[in-house]
Amino acid sequence: MPDHTILSPFAEPLRRALRARAADGAVPPLADVDPHATPGFDGDKADGKAALATRSEELTRLQELLFAQSTRADAAGPAPSVLLVVQAMDTAGKGGIMRHVVGAMDPQGVDVAAFKAPTQEERAHDFLWRIRPHLPEPGFLAVFDRSHYEDVLVHRVRGLSPLATVEERYGLIRAFEEEITAGGTRIVKVMLHISKEEQRERLEARLDEPEKHWKFNPGDVDERAHWDAYMDAYRIAMERTDTETAPWFVVPADRKWYARLAVQELLIETLQGLELTWPEADFDVEEQRRRLAAG
Amino acid sequence: MPDHTILSPFAEPLRRALRARAADGAVPPLADVDPHATPGFDGDKADGKAALATRSEELTRLQELLFAQSTRADAAGPAPSVLLVVQAMDTAGKGGIMRHVVGAMDPQGVDVAAFKAPTQEERAHDFLWRIRPHLPEPGFLAVFDRSHYEDVLVHRVRGLSPLATVEERYGLIRAFEEEITAGGTRIVKVMLHISKEEQRERLEARLDEPEKHWKFNPGDVDERAHWDAYMDAYRIAMERTDTETAPWFVVPADRKWYARLAVQELLIETLQGLELTWPEADFDVEEQRRRLAAG
Repeated sequence: MPDHTILSPFAEPLRRALRARAADGAVPPLADVDPHATPGFDGDKADGKAALATRSEELTRLQELLFAQSTRADAAGPAPSVLLVVQAMDTAGKGGIMRHVVGAMDPQGVDVAAFKAPTQEERAHDFLWRIRPHLPEPGFLAVFDRSHYEDVLVHRVRGLSPLATVEERYGLIRAFEEEITAGGTRIVKVMLHISKEEQRERLEARLDEPEKHWKFNPGDVDERAHWDAYMDAYRIAMERTDTETAPWFVVPADRKWYARLAVQELLIETLQGLELTWPEADFDVEEQRRRLAAG
Repeated sequence: MPDHTILSPFAEPLRRALRARAADGAVPPLADVDPHATPGFDGDKADGKAALATRSEELTRLQELLFAQSTRADAAGPAPSVLLVVQAMDTAGKGGIMRHVVGAMDPQGVDVAAFKAPTQEERAHDFLWRIRPHLPEPGFLAVFDRSHYEDVLVHRVRGLSPLATVEERYGLIRAFEEEITAGGTRIVKVMLHISKEEQRERLEARLDEPEKHWKFNPGDVDERAHWDAYMDAYRIAMERTDTETAPWFVVPADRKWYARLAVQELLIETLQGLELTWPEADFDVEEQRRRLAAG
């Protein structure tokens, strides 16, 4: 059997184990989720790193299979695509996810978009205006490093928009994501969940190394004073925008190796769910062999 | 000494060894360059693969250093950026360069743009119109998988534009690249050089594996009939657009491992040439430590 039959290192599908919405339909407070836990995974850090390397081959294969769909000429509609949304408090490990999980795939079929504070031009438009150009093309996997959710997270906590506007946006986001899904895009939304204490240690580590100073932003310390409000804003956002087709997952992230392994597996499960097959040749293979042999 | 002092595995700078323009100022015909050679590298395939892994750390470090520049608030002008243009005949190994060289860097600071046959909208505009949006932002490394050079390569060989138009484009490209350079972008242009025989073997290999059929395009076989015309069009394009600030390099590519190692080293040399340093803190480190300790 080929390598890609290697099983998931997790005891159960992560789409179930890490889903933000509980079986009773509610999204529990983030205080109920232990950021240091490793749901579904039995091993330690060394096991986790080994599993990441092994499963990376499967993710790479599945992403190539997705990319191959873009060449289908016979498709009834556009080829499928995948959108991974990553949200988190600062230092929670978004960068590591980009390097170690996203970076392991073929850059030809993967687009990473980092959404920073909006420009003046972007602020002059609807909050989804700057998002649309970065949606995945058919066959592509797009990754959002922050996203349209900033407009209901920081905007809610810091009052950057009136509360009524924030409230309206949850519905606009649901409609937006429903539209994207209808167009053939599978959406996976991840919140990397770290503890406030772990964040302090990571920020201190950045101060300890001059080569990391450029990553430190004093504004990140300001935000710590609003930690509980952020956790609440995350819970509300997930409660209001988690749907069957655009689900939210809470990934414990105090252990970086676990968060990476979990996001990798969520991508694998999503790609497997597409049940893709390699496109068949739309040409005569033997005829092409003869033409090649002739010159 | 830190790891990054590990020396280049090449006997001399590749910017000299692989430069398309010879010392006498002319660009010799591609028939004079052995696609199977490994200029400047003494080892075999195993050595080459080991060197690629080792040097990957240095490339990653330099690319992070480039990315860090984008946070400089005190900059006199925009932060520097790098543009790698990769051109080649089909199967020459562009995909492998993207996966193994470009893919080893942090996807957060790297943008890959693949230029396929232009759309109707793109054809309605100047040939550089679709290129501009993909130029690197300050601190970024952009990679073009094919580029504006298609408009003087396939257009010349297949007569897609009048010859006078193609002739005019060389000058337009020089002016365009001069403008980009003036804006702070270092340009590296690479032609992956394979033999016609090696291409035949690679195309046959795609036919042998049903999982690779989606990568096979019968049109690629048609192009083989124009091989010599393509080699001539490449030579003319390099002759007319190789400049000190936007140089062309011919990378022998019959051995995939060599081509990857060489492109990696050309990127390293380019980044080293920027002589970047880590941005210094624009905040009081001790004050931030106190604030963090307080909460």
